[in-house]
Amino acid sequence: MTSGHRPPGCPPRRSQECALTNATTRLHLDRVQAARQVINPAFLDTPLYVCESLAPVLGCEVSVKLETANPVRSFKGRGTEVVATQMADAGERSVVCASAGNLGQALAWSGRQRGLDVTVVASRFAPAIKLDRIRALGARLELVDGDHESARDWAVEIARTEGIRLLEDSLDIETCEGAATIGLELAAASSSYDSILIALGGGALATGVGYAMKSLSPETEVVCVQPHGAPALTRSWQQQRVVTTSSTSTIADGVAGRYPIAEVLADLLVVADDAVLVREESIVTGMRLLMEHAGLVVEPAAALGIAAILEAPERFAGQHVVTIVCGSNVDPAAYRGWIDPARP
Amino acid sequence: MTSGHRPPGCPPRRSQECALTNATTRLHLDRVQAARQVINPAFLDTPLYVCESLAPVLGCEVSVKLETANPVRSFKGRGTEVVATQMADAGERSVVCASAGNLGQALAWSGRQRGLDVTVVASRFAPAIKLDRIRALGARLELVDGDHESARDWAVEIARTEGIRLLEDSLDIETCEGAATIGLELAAASSSYDSILIALGGGALATGVGYAMKSLSPETEVVCVQPHGAPALTRSWQQQRVVTTSSTSTIADGVAGRYPIAEVLADLLVVADDAVLVREESIVTGMRLLMEHAGLVVEPAAALGIAAILEAPERFAGQHVVTIVCGSNVDPAAYRGWIDPARP
Repeated sequence: MTSGHRPPGCPPRRSQECALTNATTRLHLDRVQAARQVINPAFLDTPLYVCESLAPVLGCEVSVKLETANPVRSFKGRGTEVVATQMADAGERSVVCASAGNLGQALAWSGRQRGLDVTVVASRFAPAIKLDRIRALGARLELVDGDHESARDWAVEIARTEGIRLLEDSLDIETCEGAATIGLELAAASSSYDSILIALGGGALATGVGYAMKSLSPETEVVCVQPHGAPALTRSWQQQRVVTTSSTSTIADGVAGRYPIAEVLADLLVVADDAVLVREESIVTGMRLLMEHAGLVVEPAAALGIAAILEAPERFAGQHVVTIVCGSNVDPAAYRGWIDPARP
Repeated sequence: MTSGHRPPGCPPRRSQECALTNATTRLHLDRVQAARQVINPAFLDTPLYVCESLAPVLGCEVSVKLETANPVRSFKGRGTEVVATQMADAGERSVVCASAGNLGQALAWSGRQRGLDVTVVASRFAPAIKLDRIRALGARLELVDGDHESARDWAVEIARTEGIRLLEDSLDIETCEGAATIGLELAAASSSYDSILIALGGGALATGVGYAMKSLSPETEVVCVQPHGAPALTRSWQQQRVVTTSSTSTIADGVAGRYPIAEVLADLLVVADDAVLVREESIVTGMRLLMEHAGLVVEPAAALGIAAILEAPERFAGQHVVTIVCGSNVDPAAYRGWIDPARP
């Protein structure tokens, strides 16, 4: 695990005062609480519990916040419920988004519930299971030859030419507010956590949950985790400026972006205490451990938190850590390979 | 699937009047509602959602009630919370139960929370992962050479010689009342269900949930499912008398009993509309489908409902079916074999 390095002279961001009084984010607690009111209950109050049998393996107490036991098998429904409700209330009928696969499923689901026309743009290299589910949920699926950044460009173009709403993950504040409702639930739990480990992709999950935790549970260290193979936002956080990369190489398709968004980075700089990078083999081991010791099918991005513990056990030793199991949309054949302890 | 055959002249049990006015069970709705008040929230309000991608495979809409996302990975905590609360309130300190593996984990967890001494008797042929977890949760584990019925005998003997509380699964009404709280949640859901498919073992789950459904959602057909390799309670229901078997042969270790309890059978005759048997290969296919299409790790007993649909697709065609995913405590190596589509 490559830990984040704060520039010299920059104070650590551990106290609420430092994090949320001296600096502001685009998020507001009253808006997050209002978001909760419009989200379908299928996505709310998700399981949160200690997986005791992980402790001997990882050296710390691990709780999971399970965001996969819902109709779209990821946390993204929280944000799309907010967006789709607002659109329906405003009489808007059509929306397009780029998606690595999970946002598209969630927007398709939320849009279908409200009679919206949903278009999803995705890379044709996204997992087939995610693309199939987007189609099955009734959305129009547009595939691009490039990666997720190409899909983002094409979604912008569709929104412009068709004059419809563009939903931009992590930039559109509703996606962050939806994710932040997870933080409300964590902060209301009877347990308190020393650290929270959050998958870092576009940043909605980390900024949303991080904001809620820093507001309501400031003693919890907010640690973002990204693969070495897709490090753009982590590098940006470390250098306090947008850093892009020319390519990505990771099995964690859900977090494989190259162009961080400046507004999201600004929020992340306020709410994140650290951002770390992990290796592919740690992600795979994390997936296997979650199956063996917790009985959970998780997609690679959802194992990033466990991977971070595996790479820095001394850092988390004796702590009570919580990690968000953010998605379970895996290709079955690939998944069987990942959880095979005999894999090469 | 071998469907149940009602004796000639016996009216079908489809109406609330028939089921719960003309006949009574040991259960009472006010006690079930009271049980809910003492159960740790970690076991309550579990996820309930439609797994849309199962529909094209099974020919019906399938919802799952997920009882695995909790500290003991099965529904059994609902009942043991009730028992352990009552014991603590009464100043009782020690309890023994026989367990196929899941009840023992749950009782160990609930007892530990309340400072009780818990002894669990199990067959030494129970899955190692279940036995290991019972020990890890701090219970005294006693192993017997025989099967689950031998463990039941030995638990009775321990209770007698040590003068401690014997918890008998399905016979002790608290275990049924705990399970029945699942039915409260199902009946309160916004969806209504044509059928509910419930794993049938000792009978606590089926009589508890069946009672709540027949009381609150009488239009839902209550269908119990057991393996051909462990058919004692199903045969008993079909013949309206206790039928025992000399052995069991099934991968569904959680439901492999041979000696049905007369009181439990009496309740089951009131609340169950049908009891069916399924083949081992259908259970395995059910486990694989739940992994591939729902992202769920389930133990064999938790796939019985899907197995029943696989064996009688015409019966459930077009219905909205709900099944209780009652446990996920699987041996990882065995599980990898079960979900391998290339297995012999």
